[in-house]
Amino acid sequence: MEIHKGLDGVVVSETKISSIVENQLLFAGFNIDDLVAENVQFEEVIYLLWYLRIPNSLELKKFKQDLALEMQISDTIITCLKIQTRQNLHPMSVLRSTISLLGVFDPNAESTDERSIYHQSIALQAKMPTIVAAYARLRKGLDPIAPRSDLSIAENFLYMLTGNEADQVQVDAMNQALVLHADHDLNASTFTARVCASTLSDVYSCITGAIGSLKGPLHGGANEKVFDMLEEINSDNLNVADYLNQKLDRKEKVMGFGHRVYKTEDPRKKHLKKLAKELTTITKKEQWYFLSCQVERYLKETKGLIPNVDFYSATVYHCLDIDSDLFTLIFAMSRVSGWLGHINEQKKEDCLIRPRSHYIGPKQLKYSDIQTIHSGGMEA
Amino acid sequence: MEIHKGLDGVVVSETKISSIVENQLLFAGFNIDDLVAENVQFEEVIYLLWYLRIPNSLELKKFKQDLALEMQISDTIITCLKIQTRQNLHPMSVLRSTISLLGVFDPNAESTDERSIYHQSIALQAKMPTIVAAYARLRKGLDPIAPRSDLSIAENFLYMLTGNEADQVQVDAMNQALVLHADHDLNASTFTARVCASTLSDVYSCITGAIGSLKGPLHGGANEKVFDMLEEINSDNLNVADYLNQKLDRKEKVMGFGHRVYKTEDPRKKHLKKLAKELTTITKKEQWYFLSCQVERYLKETKGLIPNVDFYSATVYHCLDIDSDLFTLIFAMSRVSGWLGHINEQKKEDCLIRPRSHYIGPKQLKYSDIQTIHSGGMEA
Repeated sequence: MEIHKGLDGVVVSETKISSIVENQLLFAGFNIDDLVAENVQFEEVIYLLWYLRIPNSLELKKFKQDLALEMQISDTIITCLKIQTRQNLHPMSVLRSTISLLGVFDPNAESTDERSIYHQSIALQAKMPTIVAAYARLRKGLDPIAPRSDLSIAENFLYMLTGNEADQVQVDAMNQALVLHADHDLNASTFTARVCASTLSDVYSCITGAIGSLKGPLHGGANEKVFDMLEEINSDNLNVADYLNQKLDRKEKVMGFGHRVYKTEDPRKKHLKKLAKELTTITKKEQWYFLSCQVERYLKETKGLIPNVDFYSATVYHCLDIDSDLFTLIFAMSRVSGWLGHINEQKKEDCLIRPRSHYIGPKQLKYSDIQTIHSGGMEA
Repeated sequence: MEIHKGLDGVVVSETKISSIVENQLLFAGFNIDDLVAENVQFEEVIYLLWYLRIPNSLELKKFKQDLALEMQISDTIITCLKIQTRQNLHPMSVLRSTISLLGVFDPNAESTDERSIYHQSIALQAKMPTIVAAYARLRKGLDPIAPRSDLSIAENFLYMLTGNEADQVQVDAMNQALVLHADHDLNASTFTARVCASTLSDVYSCITGAIGSLKGPLHGGANEKVFDMLEEINSDNLNVADYLNQKLDRKEKVMGFGHRVYKTEDPRKKHLKKLAKELTTITKKEQWYFLSCQVERYLKETKGLIPNVDFYSATVYHCLDIDSDLFTLIFAMSRVSGWLGHINEQKKEDCLIRPRSHYIGPKQLKYSDIQTIHSGGMEA
């Protein structure tokens, strides 16, 4: 019997949403390198992942209006966020709970017609940045800032964090980071969303489950740990080679390196590395870029390890003045677009995802025999 | 390329927790028929699924004490439940959110040492019935009833619903229903929990995700829909054959029938059918048992369909005076024991579950070409 541990290389479904072929990542047939070169807006990419085509200008305008109408969060959600900021815990747990609560408070959450699914998807996509920004402020004792309907998702998010409109360079960087993280074949969180969708559960359940998986340090959780590592090296003025050797000797994983699918190069890295270089120069935080390059070079030369999407995005987000424990929430704000596309695709398949396990324990045990042993009967 | 839609028959992992062999369901080597015949307590089954052996009397006593210490829920959780009862929405969404919030409020939620995992597991297992009972009362405008440390899980749950100690027959039925639903190989919710655990995310994320999958009508959500169907037939005094024929003609699924794994008989059904017969007799609600038998007979004879675990459990829960929209929550109260065992087993494997998809959409599209089409350039 073949046991497919980790389902490595096992093809679970057909998809039209994204693909990885020869180290190239394509969204519905468009190479991400092309989308980045064309400076495509994140909103267009969301539309692309849901409808498998680029919207024309009228469609995009309507789509952005629909998103803008759903960006606000209710007072009840803000109350729930306040209850959760009394504690000082993992922000991804707060996002997981708050998204789940959105489902409780959406009177439409159980409806499965096309119009309802669209409305739920728009609401989840539009409200997530508002929730993240509100939480980021509430935990610092600041009031949340309401979203503006005239700003793009990237602009709005940076605006809601500070109350000031961000520079174009910052907005472009934020937008590009959102584009690059939007989808990625059957990664673990997307697969979680699809397993949940295959039971025909509701969209909020699928997204809540996906957030829980993205939180894991072997998946999106790596994001925040990258910058923690850079800070550790920098603050203690450590030698990069010594630090990494010690880490590897202790068999610890170096976060932000290696990938199940990519063996020679992650196609998203070069874009994030370029953004990291630009932003560190502008913000005079060059040390993070140089340190990152040192880490990359050392791990490549000694271990053949390659950086993944998480490695340079850490420095990008840091330059946008975002706390490292919010990095994975930004990942979620982007990836939710892909999750929603995949949930829809999976539901249309109408096929429960339900694998099997291979039992390797003892068999034919008798409860009464064990009770006899426990009561000492065997020794009598 | 082989595409394993639904992962039907694909073996994803080795397990020592449960197995299905020749229509027999075994928990860590013990046949559930044996466990039911021995009238085993649900607490023993939880221990069995976590430690893969029957506890001796001292171990069981300590285990029950640990559970009793964690049965209470905080005032903050009760506040959050009250906020959620203002709406009149799906109780499984409320359970999903409340379990997620337990994780936010557990200062220990991110710890991964063995002692912390035990504490998190005990807390989840112990608090879930308290949450379900509190919610069942709050939504009727009643105050929650605190759990009693001298009662078993089955006794406590029925006590917390009404404030009165239940009869022994009711307690035994509740206990047996909890035992029978406790684990079941890699069903979709357990698999969701394992995918999440494979990212090394925290236990609360895994259980929250599993609840979302259990909610689906192709999985645990079938539970409540069974009784809705029986009520529909009964209240309109419909002919069973006509009703089912019409349903099948409309290509609607009959909930509570059929199973991916079992083709001739679900080994749990006979026990639940027996319980349903006993309880309907005692409570003078025989019509539900007779109606269920009619439905079973007709679908077997005409379509070869067999009842699964959900079919007779609906009548059992109804006789325990539980609202049908809470049935799936009771399923969760039981299955959480299996989820927790599987999460622990998966984490020890240390292997990310990350399959692939097969891309079937267009390739090599160019953004600039599409822009040209959209702006009418091709027609010019």
